[in-house]
Amino acid sequence: MTDVSVLGLGAMGSALATALLGAGRSVTVWNRTPDRAAELVTRGARGAGSAREAVTASPVVIACLLKYASVRDTLGPVADDLRGRTLVNVTTTTPNESRQLAAWAAEFGVSYLDGAIMAVPAMIGSREGQIFYSGSRKAYDALLSTLDIWATSEFHGEDAGRASLVDLAMLSGMYQMFAGFIHGAAMVAAMGMSASEFAARQAPFLSAMTQGLGGYAEVVDGGDYTVPGQQSLDFSDLSHLVRASEEQGVDPAPIAAVQALISRQIDAGHGSEGFARIYESLRAAHPATRSAIRPQEGTAA
Amino acid sequence: MTDVSVLGLGAMGSALATALLGAGRSVTVWNRTPDRAAELVTRGARGAGSAREAVTASPVVIACLLKYASVRDTLGPVADDLRGRTLVNVTTTTPNESRQLAAWAAEFGVSYLDGAIMAVPAMIGSREGQIFYSGSRKAYDALLSTLDIWATSEFHGEDAGRASLVDLAMLSGMYQMFAGFIHGAAMVAAMGMSASEFAARQAPFLSAMTQGLGGYAEVVDGGDYTVPGQQSLDFSDLSHLVRASEEQGVDPAPIAAVQALISRQIDAGHGSEGFARIYESLRAAHPATRSAIRPQEGTAA
Repeated sequence: MTDVSVLGLGAMGSALATALLGAGRSVTVWNRTPDRAAELVTRGARGAGSAREAVTASPVVIACLLKYASVRDTLGPVADDLRGRTLVNVTTTTPNESRQLAAWAAEFGVSYLDGAIMAVPAMIGSREGQIFYSGSRKAYDALLSTLDIWATSEFHGEDAGRASLVDLAMLSGMYQMFAGFIHGAAMVAAMGMSASEFAARQAPFLSAMTQGLGGYAEVVDGGDYTVPGQQSLDFSDLSHLVRASEEQGVDPAPIAAVQALISRQIDAGHGSEGFARIYESLRAAHPATRSAIRPQEGTAA
Repeated sequence: MTDVSVLGLGAMGSALATALLGAGRSVTVWNRTPDRAAELVTRGARGAGSAREAVTASPVVIACLLKYASVRDTLGPVADDLRGRTLVNVTTTTPNESRQLAAWAAEFGVSYLDGAIMAVPAMIGSREGQIFYSGSRKAYDALLSTLDIWATSEFHGEDAGRASLVDLAMLSGMYQMFAGFIHGAAMVAAMGMSASEFAARQAPFLSAMTQGLGGYAEVVDGGDYTVPGQQSLDFSDLSHLVRASEEQGVDPAPIAAVQALISRQIDAGHGSEGFARIYESLRAAHPATRSAIRPQEGTAA
């Protein structure tokens, strides 16, 4: 018997297993293609010949697989072997998929903890990264000294979908920022500015501009987009930016998507209100959810 | 006669005029609606009754108007009065619009400098903000001590469109980051997390992630998306993020636009290459421009 079994030895799974070994935990490892386990075995891990063997080797099972379907395919056939153990699933899943796995685990008497990793593999084993957890509070408390080996741990509640939701929302912001940067780099290429030269300007600028997010958040939370001191939607109209992108021969799609959120509010007569009102464009597409989330405003949309 | 005339007294034009007065320059001000000039006059500015009066009052004329059409409408009728003077146009225009204004100015014997302001009005008068300039190098050099009153000045070349292009590319990144944040805030609202609570996590995370932009830039500049150590497009597939957004009742449009750039490259067989390859999605929409910009790769698209 070992302390922890790790299923899935991609870059992240390998980093998680390596960190556990480094902290003196005994670890069983398994991967669908067995060659991935070899290096970890030389570092002291025990290689398992099958998912069943891995699952039955430890009271704590970590699943770090490709996607939701991989978790179902790998663990479905060994569900009975998981009974009484704790499953920590750090595979990337949507909130609803995490909830389905939690329900499935409950059915088989498995303690379920869902983890969302806010770190690249190289950050695992330091306090630099963050991992969000949700699901069984009891499992989280019992495992905290192990989880803390990987990163800074944070529990988000018993609803198993919450960790994934916060994670995906954070990543949504990140990927949109990355795409915005690459879009900008494509625009200045026409004047012979290299992407590196652009990055040297854009990175500190965007970093400074993150200081503005709290202000937008306050307006969203307050629910009043007319409070003074905001940049208006009329002023934020990005049609010149869409046009400039086209003029440079660059697909304006990413910035046109933002402009669509802005113009939807201007067209509805809110042009003099603050930029943060694009929040309502994002929610207005699904008006049914609006009253559920902000019942005090049920009549507004 | 005064040193400088400022046409357009919105929040930014007023800030520019105020900073000049604070630095001891004599300033004439004009606005289409005259009431805006009153406060500046109490601070020592000279109020002009017409655009013509303002233009003829100083050797240097600053235009800080609403948009390109406002510049043409305001200065077109007084073009002959501008002859021999320097026009610094800081109105937001596209690169092509700036070039058209430069050509128009040349026709009337006016020195033309185009400025793009990377600052909010409150930052004018400190070194915190940046203003990019392009157009007449001679005018830039002659005016530098005046321009430096406003912000950190940077000259980008004699092509009048360049300052505007860098500015718009920078703003494109900023607005996409802001939209990404507000999209994320809408996603977590469903679990009762406030936008402020989300901002407290998202702002430091995005700020840290700006450190990754230089790496993407290096790959773009190198033109080889297969160099090791990159996150692959397959791994960056955001369809689960699009799905999670929909599951929360939030319009996935902004993140779906990014996913479209990713899947266009995956569909073309580049899934194992790096994320930075979305650059090619942005350019591929206009293949005609591609060879003009990166002639060494003219056959690739």
